[in-house]
Amino acid sequence: MSSRKVRIAVIGSGKMATIHAGNISRSPGACLAAVAGGSGAAALATAYGSTSMDVHEAFERPDIDAVVIASPNRFHAEHIVQAVAGGKAVLVEKPVDLDLERVDGCIAAVGDSIDRVVVAFNRRFDPSFAAVRRRVLAGEIGDVEQLLIISRDPAPPPLEYVPGSGGLFRDMMIHDLDMARFLVAGEFASVQASIQQTNPELTALGDASGAVVTLAAANGALVTILNSRSNASGYDQRLEAAGPLGTLAVTNATGTLVRGSCRDGTNAGDSFVPHYGDRYEAAYREEIEHLVSVARGGEKPIASLHDGRAALALALAAAESAAAGTRVPTPADHRFLTLPAPHSDARY
Amino acid sequence: MSSRKVRIAVIGSGKMATIHAGNISRSPGACLAAVAGGSGAAALATAYGSTSMDVHEAFERPDIDAVVIASPNRFHAEHIVQAVAGGKAVLVEKPVDLDLERVDGCIAAVGDSIDRVVVAFNRRFDPSFAAVRRRVLAGEIGDVEQLLIISRDPAPPPLEYVPGSGGLFRDMMIHDLDMARFLVAGEFASVQASIQQTNPELTALGDASGAVVTLAAANGALVTILNSRSNASGYDQRLEAAGPLGTLAVTNATGTLVRGSCRDGTNAGDSFVPHYGDRYEAAYREEIEHLVSVARGGEKPIASLHDGRAALALALAAAESAAAGTRVPTPADHRFLTLPAPHSDARY
Amino acid sequence: MSSRKVRIAVIGSGKMATIHAGNISRSPGACLAAVAGGSGAAALATAYGSTSMDVHEAFERPDIDAVVIASPNRFHAEHIVQAVAGGKAVLVEKPVDLDLERVDGCIAAVGDSIDRVVVAFNRRFDPSFAAVRRRVLAGEIGDVEQLLIISRDPAPPPLEYVPGSGGLFRDMMIHDLDMARFLVAGEFASVQASIQQTNPELTALGDASGAVVTLAAANGALVTILNSRSNASGYDQRLEAAGPLGTLAVTNATGTLVRGSCRDGTNAGDSFVPHYGDRYEAAYREEIEHLVSVARGGEKPIASLHDGRAALALALAAAESAAAGTRVPTPADHRFLTLPAPHSDARY
Amino acid sequence: MSSRKVRIAVIGSGKMATIHAGNISRSPGACLAAVAGGSGAAALATAYGSTSMDVHEAFERPDIDAVVIASPNRFHAEHIVQAVAGGKAVLVEKPVDLDLERVDGCIAAVGDSIDRVVVAFNRRFDPSFAAVRRRVLAGEIGDVEQLLIISRDPAPPPLEYVPGSGGLFRDMMIHDLDMARFLVAGEFASVQASIQQTNPELTALGDASGAVVTLAAANGALVTILNSRSNASGYDQRLEAAGPLGTLAVTNATGTLVRGSCRDGTNAGDSFVPHYGDRYEAAYREEIEHLVSVARGGEKPIASLHDGRAALALALAAAESAAAGTRVPTPADHRFLTLPAPHSDARY
Repeated sequence: MSSRKVRIAVIGSGKMATIHAGNISRSPGACLAAVAGGSGAAALATAYGSTSMDVHEAFERPDIDAVVIASPNRFHAEHIVQAVAGGKAVLVEKPVDLDLERVDGCIAAVGDSIDRVVVAFNRRFDPSFAAVRRRVLAGEIGDVEQLLIISRDPAPPPLEYVPGSGGLFRDMMIHDLDMARFLVAGEFASVQASIQQTNPELTALGDASGAVVTLAAANGALVTILNSRSNASGYDQRLEAAGPLGTLAVTNATGTLVRGSCRDGTNAGDSFVPHYGDRYEAAYREEIEHLVSVARGGEKPIASLHDGRAALALALAAAESAAAGTRVPTPADHRFLTLPAPHSDARY
Repeated sequence: MSSRKVRIAVIGSGKMATIHAGNISRSPGACLAAVAGGSGAAALATAYGSTSMDVHEAFERPDIDAVVIASPNRFHAEHIVQAVAGGKAVLVEKPVDLDLERVDGCIAAVGDSIDRVVVAFNRRFDPSFAAVRRRVLAGEIGDVEQLLIISRDPAPPPLEYVPGSGGLFRDMMIHDLDMARFLVAGEFASVQASIQQTNPELTALGDASGAVVTLAAANGALVTILNSRSNASGYDQRLEAAGPLGTLAVTNATGTLVRGSCRDGTNAGDSFVPHYGDRYEAAYREEIEHLVSVARGGEKPIASLHDGRAALALALAAAESAAAGTRVPTPADHRFLTLPAPHSDARY
Repeated sequence: MSSRKVRIAVIGSGKMATIHAGNISRSPGACLAAVAGGSGAAALATAYGSTSMDVHEAFERPDIDAVVIASPNRFHAEHIVQAVAGGKAVLVEKPVDLDLERVDGCIAAVGDSIDRVVVAFNRRFDPSFAAVRRRVLAGEIGDVEQLLIISRDPAPPPLEYVPGSGGLFRDMMIHDLDMARFLVAGEFASVQASIQQTNPELTALGDASGAVVTLAAANGALVTILNSRSNASGYDQRLEAAGPLGTLAVTNATGTLVRGSCRDGTNAGDSFVPHYGDRYEAAYREEIEHLVSVARGGEKPIASLHDGRAALALALAAAESAAAGTRVPTPADHRFLTLPAPHSDARY
Repeated sequence: MSSRKVRIAVIGSGKMATIHAGNISRSPGACLAAVAGGSGAAALATAYGSTSMDVHEAFERPDIDAVVIASPNRFHAEHIVQAVAGGKAVLVEKPVDLDLERVDGCIAAVGDSIDRVVVAFNRRFDPSFAAVRRRVLAGEIGDVEQLLIISRDPAPPPLEYVPGSGGLFRDMMIHDLDMARFLVAGEFASVQASIQQTNPELTALGDASGAVVTLAAANGALVTILNSRSNASGYDQRLEAAGPLGTLAVTNATGTLVRGSCRDGTNAGDSFVPHYGDRYEAAYREEIEHLVSVARGGEKPIASLHDGRAALALALAAAESAAAGTRVPTPADHRFLTLPAPHSDARY
């Protein structure tokens, strides 16, 4: 920690911006240089003893080293390009964009600076998911042959959020498609998708209440992803990777370590932690530590723009399969180029 | 137990015949009247103090009330017909037949005696799976919206078994397709299937090392089935039914209640019970008790020939989907007609 | 199993007699030769197709090889002596007697036939407790340094049972004191006991609603036993043995493998199995198999009359400590002489 | 958070001082005003951008609102008195002192300012232990009838630490004795203690490798505490409170949510978190938040000097019982006076 603190600006003032601002202010290696954009920027800046400024000023000021882009989705791609042009390291909330061509344009514009941009796929930064990857890479279970990912929200998003969300595959499952790429060796060959329609309001908006996707890997392995927009028992974030030597699973986090037993319901563990803010609290802190390291030139992105593009491409293929009822070939991607370099892999 | 014991003959002398012979001899309401068929019939009969005889004699003798058909699969359909013709109640190992037309022929030949024939879908008789059904029927979680069934064998079958097995869908997944019908309300509309190819020996025989199947129910719900022919951590038999009010799950059984903790592997529970004989021990006992009750006229079959046919039809549709890469519509079936009548439902 | 079946008579017709009669009738190596004693003997014999007879006839008839003594406690000691005099192998329900002198008299009278008498300490025959012993003997955790035994009944016994029961220490904790001897190396040096008084009815009868006992072993280890006469969450039978290399624990058995999750009580496992008959079902079967083996001369008793005497002596010392409020030295016992011989130890 | 930040000085520069300095610097309501005392004070201050100063200066400066006393144990009592004299709110590490008379002198000297002094019994601030208390107070299980507390360190402390530590009862078990007071209604009547002697080095120093203590409550309930200085499977911090309506238990925390299964050790959860710093991370943060609130006058101490005194008195009684081998009466204490007032109880 002999280095000077990395000065980070947060772009946006919504929920994720608030989480990131707090973590930046508590990070030993970072300080919150500014909050920019959004009607709540001034209040958020004040809460953490920082200042607010115009978005473009944040991208241009030389005393800002890095930015966290948590602006509305439609601005992500252009903000990335502007921040990189201003010499900043970047952590950008998913998605890079809902449109594949715009993502490609962003990647092209970023050019050789691509190693300065981290996509905030929070599962990659979670200690438990990261431990599974580390143990898979260490050969503990052999190559993954069946991967099961379960991701269920406790309740549907507000209905007004749905139309601009890109739909379940691009909005929600994109995290799980990225996890598939994080844990399974090699390319995927095809995808098959089915949608669940048990919520008439979501159906009326052209979206689904859940989905099941199967990815066939080129090496013969299968990945299954279960998504649901509502789950009575809470936020459900699990994973099981089975290989020829064993299985590694991630269970749900609970609020406390208390278990109650009584006549009516013996052995009741505590409830699952209710929201992504709680479940991925450590991951969000890690994202900031990683951004600090990337800004200092110490690490390549754990999740790059190529990863962001590849997950989006899989989401689009899944949506196509769900609509057509056929297996859809999946596009080749850059995954081998973007694996963390060996020296940083020790960390994940 | 005031009734006279039900006299049951076992047809066959292989693994399942041996399990059934033992359970019959230990049942308070049954006695092992004979073992018939197979080179090991005499030895098996002697082990339990019974006698061996010709298969047709077993079907014809008036002092035999019921038969358990555990002969090779290709004989099942005709043995059912002969046994019913001889007035016996029947418990037949799955599958009724690998060929749908032959199953239809069997059902036609059995005619009005269909309520005398139980198909040995062992999961239906397992106390845990049966408890899930009972709690679903009681409305505890609402209508099932997502059902996940995991069924993995510890190791592939002997290679010589594979060619005549009917393939993974008809040989193995048929149990899970039946479970889907056991737990989800209404008809299924379509099926999608993908196969796993990580075992070259199974691939060479035209079979798969695993598969994932998604059933879309007419009511919008989704069922996902994961099968694998090999699983390093043992026999893996789980299920999760999620509805709007909660989730009901069946976990794996372990050999003992012992948990070990040490420096290297904290919190290690005991191994999963290794084989179907252990995992479904109680289910196999229940099958015999149910046969006794059916023979006495007290219960209708918990799993009927219609259920056997319907699961086979789904397996065939899944195989077609896996080959074609498209979603395949699933046939209407008799499920509503074969739901247990209310008076017997109290039991399941 | 080429040997002829061992012919066993059950003495008594209460709850334990009924359990044993059922297991004898289902054992491949045994048959239920008779039920003797108690007003329900004839009915119990009929239920299993056996006959009833006078107690003394059972001890004398040459066609009876072994007896299970499940008569009222006050008859146990004399029935043991009479059965051994008649050449029978014996399984006797605990306690041998509530009086230490009478136990000593019984041991003296039995003389060299002591290896023909098994005391039915059911925990020793439970697959989970036996697995802990086997793993302790194999050195998996090193010498046990702290042993915790929890034994709680779901509800107090009928009040009319209490006065003749011998009190909590001799009636209930005797099982756990025997477990301490089963799992900890060497002699115990002293015992300390405290009683719980939260049930006025039990207090009025001079008994306790629970107790905590600490045994100090000569090797410096400590054993802690928690007993309670009532436990809201059900029958609670656990154990944890901690040594320098790890811990081995036995958890509670649950009725099924089902877990439910909902808004109000996430992660609820099934209830504990409610009664000793369910929890120790396998142990009771094992007791009969062991009796068959002892009758045939194949094994020495897994729990001998010396073990029965030693557990009683510890119970008396615990009761003395609870009353006096002081640490009480514990008597030397025969434990080293009665450890299973190596050849039979392979089994436990 | 409209209030000005509470300026806190840390007294000491050892392990606990370092933990507290970090939490103060990350607390939104506090700032680290100074580090005072100990050879490492300057370095610790620098690490968090603060300054170091003399201990007495910290107690006297008007711009310091509160102090955290993490100096060597022998200074705690006088530091408390000096800090209170300087008008500071205080969080003092346990023990207040190893000598009961000195604690009484401290309480007398503090006088009416006793509500300004918090004793850092970290379990009271742990979300899981606090949740058990909250649920007990809400009547969920009725009055606690049996309380079991298990506290085992992963490894003995450095041998040079032992002579000045006060021995296992005052150094280690004092936390658990405080937990007994935290969860059981009413006074304790007596204590019984036994010590484990399996570590010759600790025995040579006059200390024990473990202990079991039983507290008899005036209402008839029993508390059992198991301590061990070494535990192969890691830091073991559990609790079970059983009442007439149910049981509430706290399990161990694990490092991640990952579970591994393989041939050799099925179902292995992750290791327990290794040290108190990890296990009580949230509790240490809560201690600082509570100190901020006490400094602002918003809350009375969750653990007061009376609580510190009472736990020490129980530890001394336990040590006396272990030495004498008799049950020792326990002194009346101020517990009812120091229960959190209703308005703050909503929090715990």
